[in-house]
Amino acid sequence: MSKYDGAVTIYSPDGHLLQVEYAQEAVRKGSTVVGLRTKDLIVMGLEKRAVDTLQVERTARKIVKIDDHIIMTFAGLTADARVLIKRAQSEAQSHKLNFERPATVEYMTRFLAKLKQRYTQSNGLRPYGVACLIGGFDDQGEPHLFQTEPSGIFYEWSANTTGRLGATVREYLEKNVASMVASPDEHMAVKHVVRALLTCTSLDASFYEIAVLKHREPMRMVKADLLAFLVKQIKQENAEEEARNKRQALK
Amino acid sequence: MSKYDGAVTIYSPDGHLLQVEYAQEAVRKGSTVVGLRTKDLIVMGLEKRAVDTLQVERTARKIVKIDDHIIMTFAGLTADARVLIKRAQSEAQSHKLNFERPATVEYMTRFLAKLKQRYTQSNGLRPYGVACLIGGFDDQGEPHLFQTEPSGIFYEWSANTTGRLGATVREYLEKNVASMVASPDEHMAVKHVVRALLTCTSLDASFYEIAVLKHREPMRMVKADLLAFLVKQIKQENAEEEARNKRQALK
Amino acid sequence: MSKYDGAVTIYSPDGHLLQVEYAQEAVRKGSTVVGLRTKDLIVMGLEKRAVDTLQVERTARKIVKIDDHIIMTFAGLTADARVLIKRAQSEAQSHKLNFERPATVEYMTRFLAKLKQRYTQSNGLRPYGVACLIGGFDDQGEPHLFQTEPSGIFYEWSANTTGRLGATVREYLEKNVASMVASPDEHMAVKHVVRALLTCTSLDASFYEIAVLKHREPMRMVKADLLAFLVKQIKQENAEEEARNKRQALK
Amino acid sequence: MSKYDGAVTIYSPDGHLLQVEYAQEAVRKGSTVVGLRTKDLIVMGLEKRAVDTLQVERTARKIVKIDDHIIMTFAGLTADARVLIKRAQSEAQSHKLNFERPATVEYMTRFLAKLKQRYTQSNGLRPYGVACLIGGFDDQGEPHLFQTEPSGIFYEWSANTTGRLGATVREYLEKNVASMVASPDEHMAVKHVVRALLTCTSLDASFYEIAVLKHREPMRMVKADLLAFLVKQIKQENAEEEARNKRQALK
Amino acid sequence: MSKYDGAVTIYSPDGHLLQVEYAQEAVRKGSTVVGLRTKDLIVMGLEKRAVDTLQVERTARKIVKIDDHIIMTFAGLTADARVLIKRAQSEAQSHKLNFERPATVEYMTRFLAKLKQRYTQSNGLRPYGVACLIGGFDDQGEPHLFQTEPSGIFYEWSANTTGRLGATVREYLEKNVASMVASPDEHMAVKHVVRALLTCTSLDASFYEIAVLKHREPMRMVKADLLAFLVKQIKQENAEEEARNKRQALK
Amino acid sequence: MSKYDGAVTIYSPDGHLLQVEYAQEAVRKGSTVVGLRTKDLIVMGLEKRAVDTLQVERTARKIVKIDDHIIMTFAGLTADARVLIKRAQSEAQSHKLNFERPATVEYMTRFLAKLKQRYTQSNGLRPYGVACLIGGFDDQGEPHLFQTEPSGIFYEWSANTTGRLGATVREYLEKNVASMVASPDEHMAVKHVVRALLTCTSLDASFYEIAVLKHREPMRMVKADLLAFLVKQIKQENAEEEARNKRQALK
Amino acid sequence: MSKYDGAVTIYSPDGHLLQVEYAQEAVRKGSTVVGLRTKDLIVMGLEKRAVDTLQVERTARKIVKIDDHIIMTFAGLTADARVLIKRAQSEAQSHKLNFERPATVEYMTRFLAKLKQRYTQSNGLRPYGVACLIGGFDDQGEPHLFQTEPSGIFYEWSANTTGRLGATVREYLEKNVASMVASPDEHMAVKHVVRALLTCTSLDASFYEIAVLKHREPMRMVKADLLAFLVKQIKQENAEEEARNKRQALK
Repeated sequence: MSKYDGAVTIYSPDGHLLQVEYAQEAVRKGSTVVGLRTKDLIVMGLEKRAVDTLQVERTARKIVKIDDHIIMTFAGLTADARVLIKRAQSEAQSHKLNFERPATVEYMTRFLAKLKQRYTQSNGLRPYGVACLIGGFDDQGEPHLFQTEPSGIFYEWSANTTGRLGATVREYLEKNVASMVASPDEHMAVKHVVRALLTCTSLDASFYEIAVLKHREPMRMVKADLLAFLVKQIKQENAEEEARNKRQALK
Repeated sequence: MSKYDGAVTIYSPDGHLLQVEYAQEAVRKGSTVVGLRTKDLIVMGLEKRAVDTLQVERTARKIVKIDDHIIMTFAGLTADARVLIKRAQSEAQSHKLNFERPATVEYMTRFLAKLKQRYTQSNGLRPYGVACLIGGFDDQGEPHLFQTEPSGIFYEWSANTTGRLGATVREYLEKNVASMVASPDEHMAVKHVVRALLTCTSLDASFYEIAVLKHREPMRMVKADLLAFLVKQIKQENAEEEARNKRQALK
Repeated sequence: MSKYDGAVTIYSPDGHLLQVEYAQEAVRKGSTVVGLRTKDLIVMGLEKRAVDTLQVERTARKIVKIDDHIIMTFAGLTADARVLIKRAQSEAQSHKLNFERPATVEYMTRFLAKLKQRYTQSNGLRPYGVACLIGGFDDQGEPHLFQTEPSGIFYEWSANTTGRLGATVREYLEKNVASMVASPDEHMAVKHVVRALLTCTSLDASFYEIAVLKHREPMRMVKADLLAFLVKQIKQENAEEEARNKRQALK
Repeated sequence: MSKYDGAVTIYSPDGHLLQVEYAQEAVRKGSTVVGLRTKDLIVMGLEKRAVDTLQVERTARKIVKIDDHIIMTFAGLTADARVLIKRAQSEAQSHKLNFERPATVEYMTRFLAKLKQRYTQSNGLRPYGVACLIGGFDDQGEPHLFQTEPSGIFYEWSANTTGRLGATVREYLEKNVASMVASPDEHMAVKHVVRALLTCTSLDASFYEIAVLKHREPMRMVKADLLAFLVKQIKQENAEEEARNKRQALK
Repeated sequence: MSKYDGAVTIYSPDGHLLQVEYAQEAVRKGSTVVGLRTKDLIVMGLEKRAVDTLQVERTARKIVKIDDHIIMTFAGLTADARVLIKRAQSEAQSHKLNFERPATVEYMTRFLAKLKQRYTQSNGLRPYGVACLIGGFDDQGEPHLFQTEPSGIFYEWSANTTGRLGATVREYLEKNVASMVASPDEHMAVKHVVRALLTCTSLDASFYEIAVLKHREPMRMVKADLLAFLVKQIKQENAEEEARNKRQALK
Repeated sequence: MSKYDGAVTIYSPDGHLLQVEYAQEAVRKGSTVVGLRTKDLIVMGLEKRAVDTLQVERTARKIVKIDDHIIMTFAGLTADARVLIKRAQSEAQSHKLNFERPATVEYMTRFLAKLKQRYTQSNGLRPYGVACLIGGFDDQGEPHLFQTEPSGIFYEWSANTTGRLGATVREYLEKNVASMVASPDEHMAVKHVVRALLTCTSLDASFYEIAVLKHREPMRMVKADLLAFLVKQIKQENAEEEARNKRQALK
Repeated sequence: MSKYDGAVTIYSPDGHLLQVEYAQEAVRKGSTVVGLRTKDLIVMGLEKRAVDTLQVERTARKIVKIDDHIIMTFAGLTADARVLIKRAQSEAQSHKLNFERPATVEYMTRFLAKLKQRYTQSNGLRPYGVACLIGGFDDQGEPHLFQTEPSGIFYEWSANTTGRLGATVREYLEKNVASMVASPDEHMAVKHVVRALLTCTSLDASFYEIAVLKHREPMRMVKADLLAFLVKQIKQENAEEEARNKRQALK
């Protein structure tokens, strides 16, 4: 274990910033999240790691509103994420006040990315251990989905996933991106997100949290019964397909 | 013992913030506390670790008032907790002054959580070694119970426990959450909290401290004689049940 | 010897703040002090570690006035204590000026406790190596006795002891707390404090320093001749009791 | 691994600043970029390391505008580069405001170089892990191409390359610099840049990003179909030349 | 050698502040100094460690004036002492200006003690390696003699010694304190101080420096010839006593 | 490798400042530079380490103007040097503004030397890894040539050299200083500088950069063709001399 | 090599400040300097370590003017010394401006000593590696000669020496101090200083630098020819004495 890991502001001899990579590791230990942008929808979903019968669900939610037109979720350290969310919400409010129009999704993303980068370059601070998925609509109703990493890097995506167990989810997203993005209605889009999450874990519907955002409409959480129905339906479809594949293989 | 433990602002290679986890360890060494939220009550209880005949009981109390409508208890480092309590009390006062209405329970919880998170990210500071249970009523009389961790994470709970020996307590809470939350009167709710505490330690009534908060009423400590009566009753009930179980087993 | 001892702001893996515990160790090396609160008296006493024929006694005194109605003594690092005393005296003065009434005993205790806690959480500072016994009267003449630790923890006591050799003293205090607190007059109260000190060391009267505070009266040091008389009397009583016990044992 | 690597502000005994050299290493791991300055054009090109079907291409672009007349690309840490770009863009804006004429290309280069040098000399900061290619036109239409290193060193170039796999690219540039700089039209210049990139990697056109800047014209990205055509043409030409060389060799 | 020695602000596990103890060690290496307070005199004396024929004696003097009515000497690091002296002199001047009466001896002592304590508790500073003997007269002509340690501890003394070889000096002072303090005239008092110094070293008169302060009179250095006379006389008396003791022993 | 190398502000036990010596090492790795002061000329020359066909020569120049009447060159870290040059240029401008006459060569030298010394004494900074040759004319036309080291030491010289391979150059300068300083015209002076450089490396004229400064005239770079002519001539002369020496030896 | 050497602000367990001692070591490596104060003269001399034919002698001078009536020389780090000289010169100027009379020699000495002490007590700074000899005249024409050490200690001297090879010089000074101080004229005083220097090194006159200061006269450097004459004369005298001693020994 070399000393290059020890301080944010030090490169290892091969040009790595190890603390940033370790923060990324904290993200890789976070719960799996999925984001999708269709032509008139933002859908975000995530697998909840533990359900506690004593917990009040509302405060355990990880998909949150930054402004009426922008929502965000994350993988990684929850306490860090709450701080980023709070700062993003304040920035969104103050942007509205100062410029008399809402911040764009890209503006909010850049705001978070810059904050994160600064924490990778100054001594006495550690990088935020959080990857953020930021989605929303611009004034003309154009949907956008961005992701920022602990390093401060960010890109725009039509769909993306991060956190634990993301590999099979990503595979699903890449295979179905065309049909997903073109999903004619909300039902289809939500089903894609649930199906993506079900590729890596096969849990009960209560282990998932899905939210939908439409232009000029408030964010809505997908209801428990609809979610249960979808999970059941998808599991059945997957079982049928598996059976079909087996028959195919036997022929 | 690696260097990743050494400074708050350093991740270990697998993405952990060890100082935060060690602060959590200080919580796990604290006295067991229990919080319960019924539809019109907040009940908090804790096992006192040591009773000193020379001590004046009032200052040894660990269930304290943040404002008329919010109470708090904690597990972990007492000196740290007193600082957090003092800051929360000031914030509550200044909120009332500035906004001309009392702070909500969630506002006070976020205030404490943010304070804690900041102490996990800046160099030269150590995290607060305290988990806080914050309970109270909102303006409309809605009861809330929150818990914050040293990391700054917080959730809302219908009932929760933290500190030393919390496992059997949690088990009791999870099994009885439905009947607890629905407890028709104060007597029942307090008895549930005492019974929860008695699952892990079987001490004299003087080793417990229980407080009750009702909407628009001042916090009340459960009187010593009532507490003694309850402890005695529960121990008897437990003994009877054990006897019943044995008979059952012999059949 | 692990690195967790090294800096105040670091937890050990099992959740300890070792520097605070080492500061407590400095207290445990301090001279034994005793405090007693009866219904109308505060009595403080201590064993002086070394008497120097060249020293002027006044400046060697360790029981000092914070304000007319509050006195304080301590165990631990004398230079640290003098700083705390000075700061408490200033705070008491400024409280009187700003609020036009004297600070309560609890206010002064909280002031010292908060100061101490801050020195356990910020890097670049060490905790104060001092435990303080603070006693006095509130406006209505109610007596109070508090003790603060290096960690910033404080409690109220009817009687307490700290410093070197405190175990036998504490035993005496706990056995006699009821009669001590109810002592009808000053003579009895002082005698209790001297007897408590004599449980651990059997020195000449010149090795002890005792002070008495009454409501609306200035602090008084117990005169040397009275102290000598008490020490002699107690030693005699102890000898007689021992003899009685031996006879008892022989029967 | 000696301690001289550990802190920016320390020389190794043989006079090296190792952290600066490690930051340079981060550049050497970046994607290959190429810049070219002809008498009336700036052309920049780069090989994209990974194409993700889910990504929105626009935000993944690495050739960006600093001002209407200055563009920039980079090799190295993307998050660092974004910060430098943002600061350069602000500086360019504020220069225009304060001096009522646009900043020269050299002014912007010096601005970035100075910023970088400062980060190599002050403790508590790490050097920027980025090499920048800055190109543009001065007021009279004179084209300039500069490159800055993590150390803060900068030079002007007629053509240059940095990042991963730069050796064969550099060889191509050096051999063809005369004809490149004299390229009579945009098509020729772009083809040179693509051919340079194709010396080290033989990928699909979608793996390349090329931008062109002319005096008093906005920056233009080379269209995907033209790029595809050029890549195909060059590959064919290379194949033919190889065949010719083989025949030559056989004679 | 453990790390607890390393930084001022760290306790060793047994509650010691090692840097303060090492500073005390610097005092123990200093030249022996003696202070005496009779009912109308302050006498200070010290053994000079090295006499240099090239040196101008005035600047080598170690007994200095803080104000007209207060003098000071020291053992330990001379450069540190000069800084403390200068700060004390300034404070004395500014006290006179602000309060229109001279500072008391105790005020100046507390000023120096507080300064010293602060240097034991803040990181990035080392304790002053100096013990100070401060003597003088209060407004009513009351003489005082104080000593401060590197830790910031201070006490008042009728007579005291510090520095190298203090043990025999202290023994002499303790045996003769009564007659010394009651010395009817200056000659007797000075002789006591010289005799005290001669208990540990038997040097030439030029190796000693003695100063006398009387109420409302300027400090006077004891003249070289008187000093020589006293040294000679004392040596003779000592020799005679030794002879007498031997005869006594032979009887 | 001891820890004394590690921090600028630490002496090694034998009184060395190793970081300053390592910075000097960075100078010793720099390109060889030569400065010459005749009675009416300043000539500076240097060997360029690498010529790049892609580079624009102007920005690669290492002999720069500080003010109209002062020029400077350097050996060591180029990025550091550029910062020093910029600061010197600003200082020269502001001096002219504030005092309404140009700064003297010595003033500018002291400015650079002081800056360098400060970076050797404060923690958190590293010394500048640069030796500067500063030459120019004072108001009356008096020529001056100074050199500053990383330590902040500076001296005036009639001719001097620093950087890589300086030993043979220095030998040449010392042998010919009299005739050099007295060189009646520019041609002779330049030839001396070129010959000095050619003692250590025998490269093509394009590897050298020579500049000339006259009183009240702008700095001029020696033209490529003249330089080529001189290099060729000197090489020939050297060859002839060698031949002569051989013949001499054979006789 | 223990850690106590490592930081200025740390004592070693036996009470030493090692960094200050190492700075003293830098002084002990400096060139030998000598100062002499006669009743109407200050003479300073030093042995120059290296004479460079290319150097301009003026800037290599180490005896410098602080003000018209005060001169200074030093042993140790030249760059540090130049900073101290500059600060002393500024202080002298500002003293004259503020108080309308020149600073005394002692004032300037205290100014330098205090500056040096501060650099031994604050973290992040290293002590100045310089010993200063400061000589001059007070308003009434009284000559003074002071020396300050890296620790900040200073004393006044009639004559003194510091730097490399000081032992034999000191011996000479101590043997001849009476006749030196009483030297009736400048010639005698200068000869004494040269002779002192010649006790440790037997070099050519060009290796020495001697300056003379008289009351209300500018500082004068002893001319080269006079110096050469004196060196020659003294060497001859020494040879003769040696011969005489040998003859004496043979008898």
